[in-house]
Amino acid sequence: MDHRYMALALSLGRRGQGNTWPNPAVGCVIVKEGRIVGRGWTQPSGRPHAEVVALAQAGAAARGATAYVTLEPCSHHGKTPPCAEALIAAGVARVVAAVTDSDPRVSGQGFQMLRDAGIEVTTGVLAEEAARDLSGFFQRVETGRPALTLKLANSFDGRIATATGESQWITGPEARRYVHGLRGTHDAVMVGGGTARADDPSLTVRDMGVERQPVRVVLSRRLDLPLMGNLARTARDVPVWICHGPDLDPLLERSWRDLGAELIACPLAQGQIDPAAALQALGQRGLTRVFCEGGGALAAALLAQDLVDDLIGFTAGLAIGAEGLPGIGAMGLERLSEAPRYQLVETRPIGADVLHRWRRG
Amino acid sequence: MDHRYMALALSLGRRGQGNTWPNPAVGCVIVKEGRIVGRGWTQPSGRPHAEVVALAQAGAAARGATAYVTLEPCSHHGKTPPCAEALIAAGVARVVAAVTDSDPRVSGQGFQMLRDAGIEVTTGVLAEEAARDLSGFFQRVETGRPALTLKLANSFDGRIATATGESQWITGPEARRYVHGLRGTHDAVMVGGGTARADDPSLTVRDMGVERQPVRVVLSRRLDLPLMGNLARTARDVPVWICHGPDLDPLLERSWRDLGAELIACPLAQGQIDPAAALQALGQRGLTRVFCEGGGALAAALLAQDLVDDLIGFTAGLAIGAEGLPGIGAMGLERLSEAPRYQLVETRPIGADVLHRWRRG
Repeated sequence: MDHRYMALALSLGRRGQGNTWPNPAVGCVIVKEGRIVGRGWTQPSGRPHAEVVALAQAGAAARGATAYVTLEPCSHHGKTPPCAEALIAAGVARVVAAVTDSDPRVSGQGFQMLRDAGIEVTTGVLAEEAARDLSGFFQRVETGRPALTLKLANSFDGRIATATGESQWITGPEARRYVHGLRGTHDAVMVGGGTARADDPSLTVRDMGVERQPVRVVLSRRLDLPLMGNLARTARDVPVWICHGPDLDPLLERSWRDLGAELIACPLAQGQIDPAAALQALGQRGLTRVFCEGGGALAAALLAQDLVDDLIGFTAGLAIGAEGLPGIGAMGLERLSEAPRYQLVETRPIGADVLHRWRRG
Repeated sequence: MDHRYMALALSLGRRGQGNTWPNPAVGCVIVKEGRIVGRGWTQPSGRPHAEVVALAQAGAAARGATAYVTLEPCSHHGKTPPCAEALIAAGVARVVAAVTDSDPRVSGQGFQMLRDAGIEVTTGVLAEEAARDLSGFFQRVETGRPALTLKLANSFDGRIATATGESQWITGPEARRYVHGLRGTHDAVMVGGGTARADDPSLTVRDMGVERQPVRVVLSRRLDLPLMGNLARTARDVPVWICHGPDLDPLLERSWRDLGAELIACPLAQGQIDPAAALQALGQRGLTRVFCEGGGALAAALLAQDLVDDLIGFTAGLAIGAEGLPGIGAMGLERLSEAPRYQLVETRPIGADVLHRWRRG
């Protein structure tokens, strides 16, 4: 039964994905005598934590119950008292956790606190699934950068636009709607400056009822983005962060600051913004899950530096030909053995298109 | 029950695909009092026909039985007496057919001959499936050219080789084995001259126990193919047909004839062999199902002229980048609305890769 309740806790935890950064999106289920008496997941911006929500719902029924949590309950006093303390105070008899927190302020101490209070602790239940769901949180703690999902929506032959730049619509409405759902489960949506200029995207999540829009991140060496475009017009409503290089035009810098954008100075590598440095800067600002939608140059740079954790492809049933714009730009590979390889997670039809999901091999 | 027996007849008919050209690959099941007493499919090279095979198996049990055939039984005296006559002579009481033969020597006359002999005739059972299975035969009768399947095995970003030409292996062994199976169900395998030079392929079906190897077709304007390569070495064992342009080097022409290749003169279009004319020439020689394996220039020409009926893609989980060789070359499209569109038939994992099959939209 532990697996079943943990699977439920994981599905609850996923509801918070994209909403809880810099905190992890945790799920919690409280079970008393075979009955679910409390369910919770980390709330927008990260507070309250999943355990606190579930305990509040359980009330007095939490006494003697088992709490299923997808991540080790926190043990340190932050903005709120630690969750381990809350579980002890509620009289929970047993805690089942999926993974240990890798935050050095918690790591193992949450479990210890529970055990010291006489609570039975079981760990490692559906650990692999939990580690995957929380990979952005763990990766940020361990490497400083968020987990990165790269999306590519292209023609049968890997093109994202015709030679003249025509790109609407290659994939169908079902694939586009799925992309909005993906945006919603990430902390930020990221594109290169060329895409921001060519497509004038708004990069928001539409018609999904999200509580917290993802941050819009643009990598633009010179800040030469349209000052009358969709991102500029809405920068006060939904955050726009621009990763830029040195030696900015002061007028452009001033304009974007006045529009409400956050400007993030990044070093260059081979004349372009170093994507690894940009991701570190995003991690410093708390992002745990970033969704990159291109264009081809940024996608190629991320892949070439092995910064892509998940790859999501949409393939449409049309051919554009080699004059078309490639979804992945030049990568500078010398040998086929250097090509980054990904493992297939899933493939299925989505509307008229093919969805294929891959994970770093 | 008619549908069930016809589905069986269709599956039997498909066993002949690739082996029966210029004849259609037909299946036949003979059922007496709920028992299958005869099964047959068109034999290699097209004789004997499915009905004759099934009747021979049924023997005296065919009297009063129902014969399920995927195509209207023939009514004309060719190399053998017509199948309609054989069904009458065997005393069959009822014939159920999927589709009417579009060959003007048969079209409707086979059914008429049966009805005139007092046999009950039902037509149109699983007609759509049968028309699809026999599409190469019908297309050749109606347009003069065979049905064409285009295969593309490429990286996540639509590349078939690195900039330096390295292409082994992008897809895995399961996908490659599936390709051998596809070759076996086609009358011919076709590649462009560039692929024949770069890969030195043998284009045979290996480890599948096929009875009749597909014809190897190469489109090579100048006949400048390796005279010591795999195709040259084996041209006496498995047919090699080369579609070439005008003004050949007489020495090359002589060499290829001496090697045993069949040379097919074709007109040029935009400096390359006109793919539509080449397909007509292949149709004239009896081919009904052609499987094209690239390269990029030939694939693009076939797509641009709307000559591709089925598209089969294999996508591997690796990225090569825009310097890599594209699976589909330049198509000369002006607008996205001109791009040929295909309908998804199926997508599923195959080994570590994604298989996706599409049909002309």
